[in-house]
Amino acid sequence: MNVYPAKQHLAKAAANLGASAGVIFVHGGETLVHPDSDTEYEFHQDSNFYYLSGVSEPGCAAAYDIASGTAILFVRHVSADEAVWIGVPPALEDYRIAHGFDEAHYAHDIGAVLDALKPAVVYMLPHHKADQLGMVLELAVDREKLLPAVHDARVFKDDAEIAIMRAANRISSDAHVALMKEIRVGMNEAEVRGRFAGLVLAGGCSYEAYGSIAARGRNAAILHYTANNQQLDSDAEMILVDAGGTFQNYASDITRTWPVGPAFSPECRAIYQVVLDMQSAVLDACAPHRQWEDMHLLANRVAAEGLLKLGILQGDLDSIMAHHVVGYFMPHGIGHLIGIDTHDVGGYPQGVDRIDRPGLRYLRARREMLPRMAFTVEPGLYFVDAILADAKADPAVACFIDFDKVAEYRKVGGVRIEDNIVITDSGHDNLTTCPKDVASVEAIRAAAYHRHT
Amino acid sequence: MNVYPAKQHLAKAAANLGASAGVIFVHGGETLVHPDSDTEYEFHQDSNFYYLSGVSEPGCAAAYDIASGTAILFVRHVSADEAVWIGVPPALEDYRIAHGFDEAHYAHDIGAVLDALKPAVVYMLPHHKADQLGMVLELAVDREKLLPAVHDARVFKDDAEIAIMRAANRISSDAHVALMKEIRVGMNEAEVRGRFAGLVLAGGCSYEAYGSIAARGRNAAILHYTANNQQLDSDAEMILVDAGGTFQNYASDITRTWPVGPAFSPECRAIYQVVLDMQSAVLDACAPHRQWEDMHLLANRVAAEGLLKLGILQGDLDSIMAHHVVGYFMPHGIGHLIGIDTHDVGGYPQGVDRIDRPGLRYLRARREMLPRMAFTVEPGLYFVDAILADAKADPAVACFIDFDKVAEYRKVGGVRIEDNIVITDSGHDNLTTCPKDVASVEAIRAAAYHRHT
Repeated sequence: MNVYPAKQHLAKAAANLGASAGVIFVHGGETLVHPDSDTEYEFHQDSNFYYLSGVSEPGCAAAYDIASGTAILFVRHVSADEAVWIGVPPALEDYRIAHGFDEAHYAHDIGAVLDALKPAVVYMLPHHKADQLGMVLELAVDREKLLPAVHDARVFKDDAEIAIMRAANRISSDAHVALMKEIRVGMNEAEVRGRFAGLVLAGGCSYEAYGSIAARGRNAAILHYTANNQQLDSDAEMILVDAGGTFQNYASDITRTWPVGPAFSPECRAIYQVVLDMQSAVLDACAPHRQWEDMHLLANRVAAEGLLKLGILQGDLDSIMAHHVVGYFMPHGIGHLIGIDTHDVGGYPQGVDRIDRPGLRYLRARREMLPRMAFTVEPGLYFVDAILADAKADPAVACFIDFDKVAEYRKVGGVRIEDNIVITDSGHDNLTTCPKDVASVEAIRAAAYHRHT
Repeated sequence: MNVYPAKQHLAKAAANLGASAGVIFVHGGETLVHPDSDTEYEFHQDSNFYYLSGVSEPGCAAAYDIASGTAILFVRHVSADEAVWIGVPPALEDYRIAHGFDEAHYAHDIGAVLDALKPAVVYMLPHHKADQLGMVLELAVDREKLLPAVHDARVFKDDAEIAIMRAANRISSDAHVALMKEIRVGMNEAEVRGRFAGLVLAGGCSYEAYGSIAARGRNAAILHYTANNQQLDSDAEMILVDAGGTFQNYASDITRTWPVGPAFSPECRAIYQVVLDMQSAVLDACAPHRQWEDMHLLANRVAAEGLLKLGILQGDLDSIMAHHVVGYFMPHGIGHLIGIDTHDVGGYPQGVDRIDRPGLRYLRARREMLPRMAFTVEPGLYFVDAILADAKADPAVACFIDFDKVAEYRKVGGVRIEDNIVITDSGHDNLTTCPKDVASVEAIRAAAYHRHT
């Protein structure tokens, strides 16, 4: 097993801090329990702590002595009584080696170990508690500088992180393909989501990275649809599945939309192809030194061209762009940074503000793309009644939309196609392996359909 | 769809309170977010709130005017902007009807609606926040009396609750049977657990009721084993699966242990049969007015007889019981109350203490069984090295144990068989439908084995 590069991450954070002395101290999450109950919330490690320690268990901590470059791990002490119930934990030295640290101690020794280092300053995260440090060191805590230093480090993925994200994508892509082969009329959305969860857990993921979406037909027009409880009842519809597993604490975030029947209906195929063209154009453009918000605008322009061809939009392309008309069909952003968190840190560097325009308003990142940044690329087009009613009510926008055509396509619901990429020196590396072109999807569906019927 | 009897539960809690006036006020849980992240914890409703409202969504509340018997539901107001993302919610009146309340309002009107009732006292749960009530009503809050009143109500399940628990058990039992048919050498414990999660979610459960255990061979001797990451590598071993789905907010909690190969090994079969005999004796004895702790002692006595026959124990049965020797092989309790929570409320009525003796120490309930109480019945026998070392070190206990025989059976790891029952007027109703007798289990395994090989 490869050692997670926690020590390198501590060094990176220290370098970003720009300090030549002092101690970085971070602690991990604790198990949460439901109120008036002993039922535990499923434990997910604190993201920043995982980045700096590679430890997935609750009750641990890590420190880094900046001057000497010493990485110190603190693990929870398990009593003999407790070991009866949860098993005998590894020895301290085994923990140290497994996580690539220079020293390992028990968490009850945090105060004494850090005290001995006599740091002038202890860098901590704003939401972390300092009560393990002891009274004297608590006075030396700086809670401001570490968070941006860690965020800036997390934005650039190293090879080990990319390998983990590739594995998360492979497991989750395989699950999407399995679903694509299995779904049919009569299945419930809950079965689709349940099957996905089962497959990624069986594949080695710890949990679903976020609330999975399995939305048939019109449900795809509810952007955060998580009810997942309706039956697939028509071959003419599509199902949108937005689901990804978290593997070794790194998220994947993948969306595919495919026909319930053996092939896309003409309306579904038309919208699907526009979304595919949007994604293809953006992927081609993803490369160092391009601006992320330009990817959003590029997707909008390709969408406008496609919707003009279908007659859903009308008028002049530049005017359509100037009036942000596509924002009424793709109300969300083109994508976001991804890593330990699904919506990973660092989307808006300090001093960069959101752009208050339809669609762009919800863009989760606005910065220059640079090598080793990981993004989702997730164009979509949706027929959301409430948003289209807003568009109709605004004469400056309504004039660009043929609402009779919209009515024809309304049954499509929505389409989203989402891959996870890493920016390389010359372009991008697509981690998502699930097929998406019309011919491949229809080949899978047709074969599945004929097997089932 | 049947209406969940929330109003009857409010009335039951009010009756238990013994008050003729005042208002009961309870609020539901809020969505929790991971620190420095927008990733949400999977939402599970506050258990007491669900019991009194039947509402599964965050941000809601309920009140009950004791004098008039009026049940008032408060639902979270969803703005038009938010509805674009999560869908248009039902109208207030539809919420009211769906949940069987007398009135429905938005949560932002809690203060005004309760103020108009001018209650002299507002009964609340200790962990609930009163800031939605307004300053005047906050002064009238009693936080002591409601919790025991609600707990006393929750202990006795009504027909609607039993029907839901039966469904939770059916879905989860079916998943156990599916696993029993599917497992084979080469599978990883993660696949077993993933498959279980997928099946119960697909069957309509919202989530796994607790951290599922899939423990092969010796891992079954780690009582709270949740690593679930080893490969099944021997037909001579068993796998222990302790897993249940939560259906409509009610937990199921089922354990089965079965051979990885087509049949039990002689040692596995012997221990399995003793555990089955323990469960059978306890189930036969489960009836109104028996004491729960006596069920634990009965299981211990049957275990002692079985282990004596196998030669693992030696000496006189009564002395073995007097020295709590079986507690070294079954360190946990015979079972616990179950309902909305896996370890449901009410196990120790006010004034009843735990018994500080091996095994009994961890018993989660100690009370008279009465009709409509729901329990798990989960005898087990385990070969836990650390516990057996303790036994060996204590001459008063060690003399009853043949440690050479223990060494022969050590490879068995552990066996647990767990069903969920409801006490009836004359005995009990077993909600768990998954087979467990040796012949049935071996028939399933043999058929599966010959299909796979």
